[in-house]
Amino acid sequence: MHNHDLEEGTSLTPRFDANGLVTAVVTDAASGDVLMLAHMNAEALKRTIETGEAWYFSRSRQKLWKKGEESGHVQRVIEMRVDCDQDAVWLKVEQGGASACHTGRRSCFYRSIPLGQAGSVRLEFRDAEKTFDPGNVYKS
Amino acid sequence: MHNHDLEEGTSLTPRFDANGLVTAVVTDAASGDVLMLAHMNAEALKRTIETGEAWYFSRSRQKLWKKGEESGHVQRVIEMRVDCDQDAVWLKVEQGGASACHTGRRSCFYRSIPLGQAGSVRLEFRDAEKTFDPGNVYKS
Repeated sequence: MHNHDLEEGTSLTPRFDANGLVTAVVTDAASGDVLMLAHMNAEALKRTIETGEAWYFSRSRQKLWKKGEESGHVQRVIEMRVDCDQDAVWLKVEQGGASACHTGRRSCFYRSIPLGQAGSVRLEFRDAEKTFDPGNVYKS
Repeated sequence: MHNHDLEEGTSLTPRFDANGLVTAVVTDAASGDVLMLAHMNAEALKRTIETGEAWYFSRSRQKLWKKGEESGHVQRVIEMRVDCDQDAVWLKVEQGGASACHTGRRSCFYRSIPLGQAGSVRLEFRDAEKTFDPGNVYKS
């Protein structure tokens, strides 16, 4: 079931999904907080490795994009890792402009899900201060 | 393009993909390291919220599973968050048995991708000590 070379080898052989993408988890290199989740196609992966700045592939816009190309909030990659079955990468970044989320928040994960209860839950905002006004940064 | 209630509301309204799944990023609550990436269907999400222990949906086996049901390496969820567009969750966990990866390593992300070079790269093992022998833990 498990491929030895894939898991124990030193070759980067990404297992892209049916849409040609791997998942990228992005954490703040200093705090360890998860900033965002995104996707990379082969070209985004190549550019990120070559430049040390994060490139992704937008599923909604179906195009390659450099993080911060519009907002200026570029991500400098401190370390990049691949997971056991090579369908995901982990980027530890220095987030330029202090904000990774398009809503203006540092992280996309600004709401907590209460645990230990059945039925519908009420999300609780955490670390949800906006570090910029999206209306001033994004043209569209 | 962006849905205000989805991003700014307090209702948990997960946006499951075509396969009925959201992505789950799992980090070590103490170190902040990314341990693994997995997926949850509605039932896995419900059980995780209710019990405070991590349940996932295996895409390869097409079944619900509780992390640690075979290995004993249960994940106790310290905090759970949802992202802006509610298609991903972040779990901060205490990893029972010290190992999240089926290869026996603490994290699935035990190989680093060198940056700043063009062409093929050679992965470098990091924090790759095995904390258990998978052959002794998994039956299959």
